[in-house]
Amino acid sequence: MDMEHVLNDDCIFCKIIKGDIPSRTVYEDDDYKAILDVSPASRGHVIILPKHHVANVFEADEEVYAGAMKVAKKIATALKKVFNCDGINILQNNGEVAGQTVFHLHVHVIPRYKDDTVNITWKQHDDFDLDKVFEEIKKEL
Amino acid sequence: MDMEHVLNDDCIFCKIIKGDIPSRTVYEDDDYKAILDVSPASRGHVIILPKHHVANVFEADEEVYAGAMKVAKKIATALKKVFNCDGINILQNNGEVAGQTVFHLHVHVIPRYKDDTVNITWKQHDDFDLDKVFEEIKKEL
Repeated sequence: MDMEHVLNDDCIFCKIIKGDIPSRTVYEDDDYKAILDVSPASRGHVIILPKHHVANVFEADEEVYAGAMKVAKKIATALKKVFNCDGINILQNNGEVAGQTVFHLHVHVIPRYKDDTVNITWKQHDDFDLDKVFEEIKKEL
Repeated sequence: MDMEHVLNDDCIFCKIIKGDIPSRTVYEDDDYKAILDVSPASRGHVIILPKHHVANVFEADEEVYAGAMKVAKKIATALKKVFNCDGINILQNNGEVAGQTVFHLHVHVIPRYKDDTVNITWKQHDDFDLDKVFEEIKKEL
C-alpha cells in the first residue's frame, strides 16, 4: 500500500509507533503496528495502529482503514488459537462519546470469555420512525 | 472483487439478501447489502452484510472482510453528515458471548449521541501478566 507516514509529535500512539514510548508489539509491518492494550478489557486485548496519524474513520483513507481491518482479522485468528476464547469483538470507536480516548485511529480486537467484564449493550430504540430515517439516509447515499 | 455468492436457506440475512424478507436497504453493490437494523441502538444504526454466507471473521476471506469495512466507512461518513451524530462505533461481533445473534458475518455502524443508551464498557483487567500474554501471542504471530 502506498500509505503516507506522517506522525504527530503530540500523539501518544505516534510516539509508540516511533518507538519513543515502549509497547508490547505483537505484530508489525510497513504500515501497521499491533500492540497489547495496557488497560486490557480481557486476556489478549490488542489494538492496531496505522503508521500515519489520522484521528478517525472520517479522516482515514479507505485503503488504510481496510488494511487495519485485515490486520485485525489476522490478530483475531491468532488470539482465538492461542487463548481459545469464546468470541471476539472487533471495535473501532470514533469520537469521545463513542469511547475513543486516543485520537489516533485504532482498532480494538477484544477476545471474549464467558466470565469477562466486557459490556456491549443497548436498549432498542422505538422513539423514531425507521421509514423516515431510511429516507434521510437514502438521500445521501 | 471475485467474491463467491453462496447463500444459506436457513439464514435470515441470506433471505434478506435474496429479497425473500424485506429490508430497508440504504446501500447495495454486487457484493454487499447495507440495511437499517430493525432493533436500532440509535438513530441511523445500519448493518452491512456480505452477499456470501460466512458466520464470522474466522470464516471470512480477508478481502471480503476488508470490503465490508470499506462499505462501513462509506456508511459512517453518510450517517455523520445526515444525523450530525457526536460519534460512531464500528463493531463486528463474533460468537454469542460477543453479542452476535445472527450467525452471518455483519458489521454494525452505530451513530452515537450524547443522550443515547449504548453502553460499551469494561473493567480493566489486572489479573494476568501482560508480559506472559505477550509471549504467548508472539509465538503464534
